[in-house]
Amino acid sequence: MISIGIVGYGYWGPNLARCTSESERCQLVAIADQSPAALARAGKRYPAVQLHQDWRDLVADPAIDAVMVATPVSSHFEIAINALRAGKHVFIEKPITPSAFEARLLIEEAAKRNLRLMVDHTFVYTGAVEKIHELVTTDAIGDVFYYDSTRVNLGLFQRDVNVIWDLAVHDLAILDHILDLAPVAISASGTGHFSGRPENMAHLTVFYPRGVVAQINVNWLAPVKVRQTLIGGSKKMIVYNDLDPIEKVKVYDRGVTVGGGSDDITELMVSYRTGDMWSPHLSFREALIVEIEHFADSIENGTAPMTDGHSGLRVVEMLEAAMRSLRQNGAPIDLMPLARAS
Amino acid sequence: MISIGIVGYGYWGPNLARCTSESERCQLVAIADQSPAALARAGKRYPAVQLHQDWRDLVADPAIDAVMVATPVSSHFEIAINALRAGKHVFIEKPITPSAFEARLLIEEAAKRNLRLMVDHTFVYTGAVEKIHELVTTDAIGDVFYYDSTRVNLGLFQRDVNVIWDLAVHDLAILDHILDLAPVAISASGTGHFSGRPENMAHLTVFYPRGVVAQINVNWLAPVKVRQTLIGGSKKMIVYNDLDPIEKVKVYDRGVTVGGGSDDITELMVSYRTGDMWSPHLSFREALIVEIEHFADSIENGTAPMTDGHSGLRVVEMLEAAMRSLRQNGAPIDLMPLARAS
Amino acid sequence: MISIGIVGYGYWGPNLARCTSESERCQLVAIADQSPAALARAGKRYPAVQLHQDWRDLVADPAIDAVMVATPVSSHFEIAINALRAGKHVFIEKPITPSAFEARLLIEEAAKRNLRLMVDHTFVYTGAVEKIHELVTTDAIGDVFYYDSTRVNLGLFQRDVNVIWDLAVHDLAILDHILDLAPVAISASGTGHFSGRPENMAHLTVFYPRGVVAQINVNWLAPVKVRQTLIGGSKKMIVYNDLDPIEKVKVYDRGVTVGGGSDDITELMVSYRTGDMWSPHLSFREALIVEIEHFADSIENGTAPMTDGHSGLRVVEMLEAAMRSLRQNGAPIDLMPLARAS
Amino acid sequence: MISIGIVGYGYWGPNLARCTSESERCQLVAIADQSPAALARAGKRYPAVQLHQDWRDLVADPAIDAVMVATPVSSHFEIAINALRAGKHVFIEKPITPSAFEARLLIEEAAKRNLRLMVDHTFVYTGAVEKIHELVTTDAIGDVFYYDSTRVNLGLFQRDVNVIWDLAVHDLAILDHILDLAPVAISASGTGHFSGRPENMAHLTVFYPRGVVAQINVNWLAPVKVRQTLIGGSKKMIVYNDLDPIEKVKVYDRGVTVGGGSDDITELMVSYRTGDMWSPHLSFREALIVEIEHFADSIENGTAPMTDGHSGLRVVEMLEAAMRSLRQNGAPIDLMPLARAS
Repeated sequence: MISIGIVGYGYWGPNLARCTSESERCQLVAIADQSPAALARAGKRYPAVQLHQDWRDLVADPAIDAVMVATPVSSHFEIAINALRAGKHVFIEKPITPSAFEARLLIEEAAKRNLRLMVDHTFVYTGAVEKIHELVTTDAIGDVFYYDSTRVNLGLFQRDVNVIWDLAVHDLAILDHILDLAPVAISASGTGHFSGRPENMAHLTVFYPRGVVAQINVNWLAPVKVRQTLIGGSKKMIVYNDLDPIEKVKVYDRGVTVGGGSDDITELMVSYRTGDMWSPHLSFREALIVEIEHFADSIENGTAPMTDGHSGLRVVEMLEAAMRSLRQNGAPIDLMPLARAS
Repeated sequence: MISIGIVGYGYWGPNLARCTSESERCQLVAIADQSPAALARAGKRYPAVQLHQDWRDLVADPAIDAVMVATPVSSHFEIAINALRAGKHVFIEKPITPSAFEARLLIEEAAKRNLRLMVDHTFVYTGAVEKIHELVTTDAIGDVFYYDSTRVNLGLFQRDVNVIWDLAVHDLAILDHILDLAPVAISASGTGHFSGRPENMAHLTVFYPRGVVAQINVNWLAPVKVRQTLIGGSKKMIVYNDLDPIEKVKVYDRGVTVGGGSDDITELMVSYRTGDMWSPHLSFREALIVEIEHFADSIENGTAPMTDGHSGLRVVEMLEAAMRSLRQNGAPIDLMPLARAS
Repeated sequence: MISIGIVGYGYWGPNLARCTSESERCQLVAIADQSPAALARAGKRYPAVQLHQDWRDLVADPAIDAVMVATPVSSHFEIAINALRAGKHVFIEKPITPSAFEARLLIEEAAKRNLRLMVDHTFVYTGAVEKIHELVTTDAIGDVFYYDSTRVNLGLFQRDVNVIWDLAVHDLAILDHILDLAPVAISASGTGHFSGRPENMAHLTVFYPRGVVAQINVNWLAPVKVRQTLIGGSKKMIVYNDLDPIEKVKVYDRGVTVGGGSDDITELMVSYRTGDMWSPHLSFREALIVEIEHFADSIENGTAPMTDGHSGLRVVEMLEAAMRSLRQNGAPIDLMPLARAS
Repeated sequence: MISIGIVGYGYWGPNLARCTSESERCQLVAIADQSPAALARAGKRYPAVQLHQDWRDLVADPAIDAVMVATPVSSHFEIAINALRAGKHVFIEKPITPSAFEARLLIEEAAKRNLRLMVDHTFVYTGAVEKIHELVTTDAIGDVFYYDSTRVNLGLFQRDVNVIWDLAVHDLAILDHILDLAPVAISASGTGHFSGRPENMAHLTVFYPRGVVAQINVNWLAPVKVRQTLIGGSKKMIVYNDLDPIEKVKVYDRGVTVGGGSDDITELMVSYRTGDMWSPHLSFREALIVEIEHFADSIENGTAPMTDGHSGLRVVEMLEAAMRSLRQNGAPIDLMPLARAS
């Protein structure tokens, strides 16, 4: 049983609190938030839990094994580094930090103290992404050609991060998990339609070796919600629609085979394959509970979580490169070859 | 009654022949194609029509008022310039020519001879795009913020053009029609997954003045067919789904109003508006017949067609810029301010 | 502030408890359930609430103003009649009782003691049904021609009631609310595919005056979930899809006008109208909270709730008639003209 | 090569003419229609074909091997019996005749003369129904529990037949093909919303042995088009959506297993199975061409077509029973056990 303290009870903190309570692997013992109203809500819902207005008091509590950080991104580093220094395992909302520099400091600190550092890349723990990961790594879809994601809705405009840091981060985390490839370069463009505000729509292209490419379309100002990803492979292709309540993942036995020469001057020798479609049954266990129990496992067994600090760092490096490209209207930014933790 | 000769009876030519026959404004009098098999099909379907294996014979026929060119793009210029020189009005498949240079020559030739030059930007003549044009130009949706199109399917791989010239051209033609703005720059990235073949997937970002942006996602190697465009405006937003048999255009009374300062450090003062949705009734007359009758009108009245040579040229200039950007992995290419014909 | 006691903490009771707690009009003071496990769950969630294993203890508590009954249908009457006799207002899960006879006794008892008796016809309090009610009663759709509902899924098989009592009851309650007509007859057919078990699929036709008809298709053994109702009117038609997260109600300006004679022997003089579609913005407040506050209002103001005992009775009379028809493979059962409470 | 004459060039006749022309197994030699305008259209499209205003002239033509009857239902019998007496094979639009009595006479006449008599139950020849037939007959879905079809749209109101004869006939034909069971009874209800006109909406329940049941919902006055059939089996369940352009048939590995006793008074011992979904690839060859070539085969080989006169008769017997039930507001009508041709 891991004793958990949560810092931040705004938008996501209540979900962490609920799932931590429901899991039999963890015990929620403390919540910190600088807002008295947020603390009052937490206290009404969890009467037995310790409440703190200053997160430093929570971090100082010797009864706590692990700290979950669900505050605005700008404060992630300070809270997390102090929690690690106090000997706590740390679980941080995505993105792990506002800069790769800070993420590296956290990784070092955790390694030095032999503590677990985990980033909350929630989608990695869904039944859908788990199934896609299986389809990719078992070669069921063949060579991956592309990943093309549309993630748009009428979303909460945020003050301190733009739509890339808010939404594209999910796709970058999924890509980091399912592809065994380090990205080579990123091109991004984006626009803010309200002056002095962060970009509310953007598009990223991530270039990988061997012509593999990822496209990510994100938008806070869309009339309808779309969460659809196409994944093309040499053998099969996947449609992942996260809004479908049941059939989130569909696998299509479709594709083309490009042959040799042809006398026709306008068409290639291409044969098309259009076979069955198959929608595998998925686990519908709530991802956040799966993830929190994975965190508990990694603490108990001393093993690296799937979405450890290195994973968080790689995603932040991509976000930083995307921001640089965006400032240059899409000029490609090279990424240093990133060592894969695996 | 306009006498029409069609050059090219491959993929699109039979549609031109059928619609020309069905229209009471035109008479189909000749078809040319270098393939004897294509000519045999044409002759079986239209026993009274003159058949030519060499397009020069068709162009030389004094009984023909106008020539429709439905051959591969690489031959558009040669056929069209000769038809103009022979005193024929000309209607050309999209894209008008493989280069802006050639398009300018056609425009000059047609102007000099006072002949009509029209490019077949078919979508411009659909009931859906007509309605969107009306919604944009009457300020019903307010200031346009963005146009975001997904146009993917398991498509016919072509030898002489890539997916941008084949699919993105439709969006560029729609944009040219509905926006009263000249594009400033283009960023494009794309990939070919079969070595030595043209790019089969690509993404374009078109930058317009005042932060207006267009995103275009095209793909010949997608497991499912998608034809969906989101158009964001300051008052309302549009979803245009061309695959919906009836409700192709939906107008959402949704958006945000960004206000002044706020004490909350993480959220902007944004108020969200989520009102009714409305799907206007559309004309379901076949676009190609509407378009052919518009061509007949422009010939009879001596007026410029909506999609004249200038429109064709502007689209080719965008396609050329997109290709240059694509070769540089998304580096933005400036577009000269284009004079609008209107 | 109304003090509430809830009897039954199985499937629906927890929802009543949650919504009662969240409402500022009510206070949850006691929960009764014969299962110790259910009581333990209730106690963990609501530490301050009184727990009873015997509902008689709850009913006897003088601090309670109103009792909510969320037990299996067979026990509704006994608990409700005792609660009324103890001077409590009563709110009962649908269907109100297993027989019209018992419903009439409850109505009489409540009237005699001037207590409120309300049945939980939840759908009546949704934003979607509220909007449909408005469209019907303001003549926006003209004369109602029909109501045609499909309500199927892979559902929880129940022991004491069949699929008609479990699912069709929702449609009968909606019909009772939106139509100002008393039904004339019912025809029903149904089948149980597992021997000795209640019917798991059924179809009801409800005949109203003036050719108005309702069709209700219910099924516990369907591969997919469908919740779709078509409502035809002389001016407009409605599609109500309860599974659409946003656009639950769509209003179509479609229909026909049947004219006079025609010389054509095979077709009537019918003109078709296919105009715009419109999806009105709906209230997305949780229906159960709206309903519980309506119950509180009716207690405080001494007014009849929209879904009072008479409404519950009328629905049970239709259910009883449907059962009789079902035993006769669809033979129609006449309904006595039911006096409308309104 | 079979020489074909078509009687009736109204709504469906042009499709028969087109498919007959496209097939290399048949030659279209004559068309008859009493309307000069219809004949003119036919002559323009098929200049080489003989035209007759009186079908008797077509039937008398010794060059014709087979006659296709696409006239209003009321004239099917007279034309078909005369064609058979003239020694022609006969292909008739659905429903074969307005009465079972006439269908039996046609069957006898064809048998006596050893001619083929086929009814145009088009859906039987689609890739979707072919696949469903295979899934049912190979026991892939286990025992069939039910067939539940919704077939509604804003349809052409007809003068001489109601919506049952126009739309439900398709489902009865599909049922006759895929189920190896003779129906036991039918209950039907229906309503006409325009006085003096045929019923424009109806519901049929067809009772088969062993609790198998079919439900058919048809409507000419629906705001949207729906063509969806659920088929429940003991092993798997099917959703057949004829409007989906590609994935018309989906097979769900879902269902329930009902076990023995349980102590819980409200729920049965039911275990639910929710596995994969699978959408098999279908043949997309046009059904009418498949069907016409099947007719040609049956003529050349002297074999009974799949949808022979007996099939047409069984469907008409069900339609007649449905009409009798409808006149009695759903009272069930017993069907004589029908001998299966197979």
